[in-house]
Amino acid sequence: MTEFLEVVSSDELRRRLHGFPRMSSELISIDEAIDRYLAEDVISAEDLPEHPRSTVDGYAVRACDTFGASDSLPALLRLTGAVEMGKQPDVAVETGAAVQIPTGGSLPAGADAVVMVEYTDRLDSSHIEVSKPVTLRANVLDRGEDVRKGAPVLRCGSRVRAQEVGLLAAVGVTELRVFRRARVAVISTGDEIVDVERKPGPGQIRDANGHSVEAVLRACGAEATRLPIVPDDESVLRQTIETALEEYDAVVLSGGSSVGMRDLVVDVLSGLPRIEILAHGIAIRPGKPALFARRNGKPIVDLPGHPVSALIVAQVFLAPLLHYLQGAPLERGPLGQRVAGRLAASMHSTIGLEEYVRVRLEANTEGVREVHPVFGKSSMLSTMARADGLLVVPPQSEGLSAGEIVDVVLL
Amino acid sequence: MTEFLEVVSSDELRRRLHGFPRMSSELISIDEAIDRYLAEDVISAEDLPEHPRSTVDGYAVRACDTFGASDSLPALLRLTGAVEMGKQPDVAVETGAAVQIPTGGSLPAGADAVVMVEYTDRLDSSHIEVSKPVTLRANVLDRGEDVRKGAPVLRCGSRVRAQEVGLLAAVGVTELRVFRRARVAVISTGDEIVDVERKPGPGQIRDANGHSVEAVLRACGAEATRLPIVPDDESVLRQTIETALEEYDAVVLSGGSSVGMRDLVVDVLSGLPRIEILAHGIAIRPGKPALFARRNGKPIVDLPGHPVSALIVAQVFLAPLLHYLQGAPLERGPLGQRVAGRLAASMHSTIGLEEYVRVRLEANTEGVREVHPVFGKSSMLSTMARADGLLVVPPQSEGLSAGEIVDVVLL
Repeated sequence: MTEFLEVVSSDELRRRLHGFPRMSSELISIDEAIDRYLAEDVISAEDLPEHPRSTVDGYAVRACDTFGASDSLPALLRLTGAVEMGKQPDVAVETGAAVQIPTGGSLPAGADAVVMVEYTDRLDSSHIEVSKPVTLRANVLDRGEDVRKGAPVLRCGSRVRAQEVGLLAAVGVTELRVFRRARVAVISTGDEIVDVERKPGPGQIRDANGHSVEAVLRACGAEATRLPIVPDDESVLRQTIETALEEYDAVVLSGGSSVGMRDLVVDVLSGLPRIEILAHGIAIRPGKPALFARRNGKPIVDLPGHPVSALIVAQVFLAPLLHYLQGAPLERGPLGQRVAGRLAASMHSTIGLEEYVRVRLEANTEGVREVHPVFGKSSMLSTMARADGLLVVPPQSEGLSAGEIVDVVLL
Repeated sequence: MTEFLEVVSSDELRRRLHGFPRMSSELISIDEAIDRYLAEDVISAEDLPEHPRSTVDGYAVRACDTFGASDSLPALLRLTGAVEMGKQPDVAVETGAAVQIPTGGSLPAGADAVVMVEYTDRLDSSHIEVSKPVTLRANVLDRGEDVRKGAPVLRCGSRVRAQEVGLLAAVGVTELRVFRRARVAVISTGDEIVDVERKPGPGQIRDANGHSVEAVLRACGAEATRLPIVPDDESVLRQTIETALEEYDAVVLSGGSSVGMRDLVVDVLSGLPRIEILAHGIAIRPGKPALFARRNGKPIVDLPGHPVSALIVAQVFLAPLLHYLQGAPLERGPLGQRVAGRLAASMHSTIGLEEYVRVRLEANTEGVREVHPVFGKSSMLSTMARADGLLVVPPQSEGLSAGEIVDVVLL
């Protein structure tokens, strides 16, 4: 039985994961960029807007012509034209004049404000009354007021959201340099693992971990590829890992949970030239027998064999690592929405281990959200499917008491 | 100026959106199913596992042979063989015998429990000592214990997560019936709108809304298609909308904010045969001039023209509607992680309007998360890009005071 070479805490592992270089970058269309991370600053090549525009329907005027106007003593202005939508105004606003303008219309020369239509009265085809004064630049979006030419529209490292896509489109940026999606090889190992399409014989199981890990990676935006299942054969395993390290950005091993099988994977990994083992065992439960390593700047992760443990290590460490490689800050996993609830049952916890407890959420008769631990062996995937999320119990805790308010990460 | 025909509250609009039928369903691979919603129950055709398995490395025994065993008085058992990983055991466990078994190994006939290797001593090639008794079925995952044949693995309407992908793979389900992704046509309208690739002239703007709305729809998992920009021409607009309603599952109009342009869209929509207007004006700010309608069970949404208002209506109503059409419960928008923070400045709010305030989050010197309103015209997209999220002020509120703890939805 191989000893755990270096059991590290969850926080220490996270520090070590910071050492991985980010993916290289690629140029993509803004329409593909949602949730991607910028690999460089985006500077606007122009002012937005380039020409002052009206932000309301009304009349372009000279503000000073409206000063002192009121309901009882409105300002009388000559109506000298209309701005057409999408066209350059062919009329200037003189003193004492007004030009009709729609929302978004280009402010005509001479005008320095817009009066909202609500505060005007049309007397006849060539005169209006204004019943409220406007200040200089009122209801005008000035040149460069939204984005100034030469200003950063988006900073390197920021996530692209719908509003950024709109803003980039507005200043004419159609392509962006973002961090690449990571290509990840998922290798299931073990003589007992069979393809999902096959009917397992006695002692065999289908490759559930390969598919659930692929799903976690895809949910991170990574490109996951399941390679053919590798039997417990040292040279086939070594060859598969070495080829995968050349062709992919990261390698995730998943498979059997027997000590013999794990020894084999650890032996093969330890024997790779220039490998650095970052953690061989993590001070967490479940998930302790996970292995994280680096070779040529690429991560290699050997997940624990039990399907629940594999999924928890994937959600707690692998998913944040993938997001980090693809440009995000390295967050403390598990990622997901956090909600508070009242613990329905007391639970013990071992000092020194960070525990991830599968929990179900249920509103009690008073409408309070109750947090119920889901019991069951970590070899039972159904316990994860029954769980709404994970409760993280910190390593220094001896346990939690029923009634405590706790944070649950929805998974 | 067209009057708002039917201004409805945010809650009333949500009730009316419940009336849309869900998308039809399609059969897809489990590997494509993450975050999709099940359109039918999935029943397991087999027991998981089909054969009892060991959950530890150790020895398969008859539990009664270990009763009373202790460190000082261990039970002596004959070692009669070993279970090979992935193979049917070729040896049965007789009274007084033990068979070596790896984690996941198939339990041999005759055995009814497994002793962990930690509680055993190997005396010689054919004898072990057991220093701790095991109970019946200890360290065994029994036939059907994870999933029972005929039991529902996943319920209709539930979201597929990584754990469900794993569980489905484990019971040999490779395809799933899920609700289809909605195909949505995005139609930008207005004489002033030009393609993003073009340089806008005076009074023109690029089609920012079309791209930001497409991004919101894609983030919902919908398939969004931007149709060519439609000028302010009634017959072209009618033709485009009618064709889109035939070819797509939903139509989203976005474009100019001038009253004339909006009148045109409203006139065209109102003139469609069998159209039902669900809301013409919503009691929210910004975003009031939005229109929601239904024709042949398909949603038509006319977003407000100002880019900030358009994005807010898209995040608050359109995104939840899309998720709903694709199988999710109809949630109260905006969707996204909610975090609490302390309001840094007091703000007024109008009774009767639900307000969405753009806010920035900032940790103050004491590490408290402060919520700062982002000021700026709703014609300025940069204000949305500067915002970390939205603060929702309910319609019955007159305002919020600095120092109050508020919930912010991260966008």
